[in-house]
Amino acid sequence: MEVAQVLCMKGGNGDTSYAQNSLLQKKVITLTKPIIEEAISNLYCNNFPARLCIADLGCSSGPNTFFAVLEIVATVDKVLKKMGHQLPEIQVFLNDLLGNDFNTIFKSLPKFQKDLEKTTGAGAESCFVTGVPGSFYGRLFPSESLHFIHSSYSLHWLSQVPQGLESNKGNIYMASSSPPCVLKAYYEQFQSDFSLFLRCRSAELQEGGSMVLTFLGRRSEDPSSKECCYIWELLAVALNDMVAEGLIDEEKMDSFNIPNYTPSPTEVKCEVGKEGSFTINRLEVSQVNWNAYHGEFCPSDAHKDGGYNVAKLVRAVSEPLLVSHFGDGIIEVVFSRYQRIVADRMSRETTEFVNVTVSMTKRG
Amino acid sequence: MEVAQVLCMKGGNGDTSYAQNSLLQKKVITLTKPIIEEAISNLYCNNFPARLCIADLGCSSGPNTFFAVLEIVATVDKVLKKMGHQLPEIQVFLNDLLGNDFNTIFKSLPKFQKDLEKTTGAGAESCFVTGVPGSFYGRLFPSESLHFIHSSYSLHWLSQVPQGLESNKGNIYMASSSPPCVLKAYYEQFQSDFSLFLRCRSAELQEGGSMVLTFLGRRSEDPSSKECCYIWELLAVALNDMVAEGLIDEEKMDSFNIPNYTPSPTEVKCEVGKEGSFTINRLEVSQVNWNAYHGEFCPSDAHKDGGYNVAKLVRAVSEPLLVSHFGDGIIEVVFSRYQRIVADRMSRETTEFVNVTVSMTKRG
Repeated sequence: MEVAQVLCMKGGNGDTSYAQNSLLQKKVITLTKPIIEEAISNLYCNNFPARLCIADLGCSSGPNTFFAVLEIVATVDKVLKKMGHQLPEIQVFLNDLLGNDFNTIFKSLPKFQKDLEKTTGAGAESCFVTGVPGSFYGRLFPSESLHFIHSSYSLHWLSQVPQGLESNKGNIYMASSSPPCVLKAYYEQFQSDFSLFLRCRSAELQEGGSMVLTFLGRRSEDPSSKECCYIWELLAVALNDMVAEGLIDEEKMDSFNIPNYTPSPTEVKCEVGKEGSFTINRLEVSQVNWNAYHGEFCPSDAHKDGGYNVAKLVRAVSEPLLVSHFGDGIIEVVFSRYQRIVADRMSRETTEFVNVTVSMTKRG
Repeated sequence: MEVAQVLCMKGGNGDTSYAQNSLLQKKVITLTKPIIEEAISNLYCNNFPARLCIADLGCSSGPNTFFAVLEIVATVDKVLKKMGHQLPEIQVFLNDLLGNDFNTIFKSLPKFQKDLEKTTGAGAESCFVTGVPGSFYGRLFPSESLHFIHSSYSLHWLSQVPQGLESNKGNIYMASSSPPCVLKAYYEQFQSDFSLFLRCRSAELQEGGSMVLTFLGRRSEDPSSKECCYIWELLAVALNDMVAEGLIDEEKMDSFNIPNYTPSPTEVKCEVGKEGSFTINRLEVSQVNWNAYHGEFCPSDAHKDGGYNVAKLVRAVSEPLLVSHFGDGIIEVVFSRYQRIVADRMSRETTEFVNVTVSMTKRG
């Protein structure tokens, strides 16, 4: 079943979008801000569109959905003011899956407009927001209709669970104990999905248009490297414990796999090169702590427990998949065990997500 | 309080959009089909956009939300096939208030894409659907970004209840017993709203771009004419009966007014002339029975009762307004009385809505 479909199975509760954890998203976008600024500056070196069309792919629907767009528009404003120009009219396309909660996004539009005015001085009538439902593994926009595309923490979701994972027993993602054919199946799915993504976006971007994409990824060339697989490995520990106790059927466990792929910079570069219509301007790696509240103000005592925060984050993105496969009876137990396991590991080692960010321009 | 705000008070139940009754909508769009076809033909006489951008304003969120767009795209296909051309890429902007249920619209996108393929042979990748939240009494799109604008059964909603209706006691809309100052206040609100609408759309349409707008209206020049006021007059009868019985506070009743205006063709023409940037190609009047199921297959025995159908229709559009003013305690009683009153009148006289449709082109 396609991820697009699986993630849509639980309608209206916000679990039906690509990306979820908004505080983490906010941190990642802040990290990638200089790359976004460079991309916008380059855009205005090449041409000067009277109307700027930008898209945020996999926008989700949390309280920080508009954060990326606000950063991008503020950057455009800053770049143009430096050049002595006013902010042009901007059309913003917010995309996520059909089942994403666009109603909630739209209800927070007045707040975005206020924030925009505070940040740039621009009125509501200079930034027009629209919602675009659909999978980014397919065409979403007319040909050559966009100038800038942004996507953060969404593209590591594959279009579907790869085929041929039967031998990945006891694991739910790539792991050091996964047979080579499993790693190959995951990689091939990534190649096929990401190259389709690049072809679609290449058709939709105008010449000289740019993309800044951030994946959950890895530094190592080993796809079963701990830096990208550990978070799922610990969920597998919780699930395997429950198999051992007879709470989960072993066959069910063996046939469950997460449709993610966390690529290395080299793998990203390789697909961009093969597709051929983009020039890479930057390809960078950064990291953020698993615990989004690490070094931040905690809104409640519960949030002081890193295990709680990480379990909440992983639950938000994986619950629809788990429920669709195992039913909803096991969920509370899985995540209460997962929280304990994660808290234990976090107390003993540094646990970080690795981000791969690529900035590229469509060739003439 | 603005209608936009009042109508948004009941979130997520579909009562928060401009237009509601989808069967009636479908009938009206079918009635105006030749006017839409003429407008599309004219559009392609003037220019040949590689990408066609169309907007449906006040699209609502019922099962027939996509009906207008499907008709428009099918018409474009028909017009272009006659001229020996293929359907271009089309970007469709579906607009309604912030509180409209866009999630439901987006979930029915796959059905629309199937219907589109059946009707025109065009794949999903030739028609890109987006949602645009906001009031059409303000800018919704960048300058000169649209080719065709459609709106049906939405523009008779004013942006707010007119000021100065204190003397409209015992009435909830314009009525034969309304003092002249009430009729004047309603007309001035219409003039101000519709001229703002025209200015915004004029900015958003490309030169040579077209609009087809259908209002709930009237033939007569008398704004308190029965043909447009009767449906609300009967709701006032139900409310006044409840005032007489002490179920509704008289002051509450006296301060309640419906923010509608049902213009005559002359009034529409006058505002278009004053705004100055459009040429009117057609200005026509049609009518549909109050009872949308009149002459149609009834899905249940209840639907055979015209009073039931009309009460349902009026409830869908007015419940949020009534609840916001009177609270929700009276609603069931009001509409059960209204249904009886309407059924009685319908059995004795012909009851029809009058539609005013205007087709216009933006001047060069």
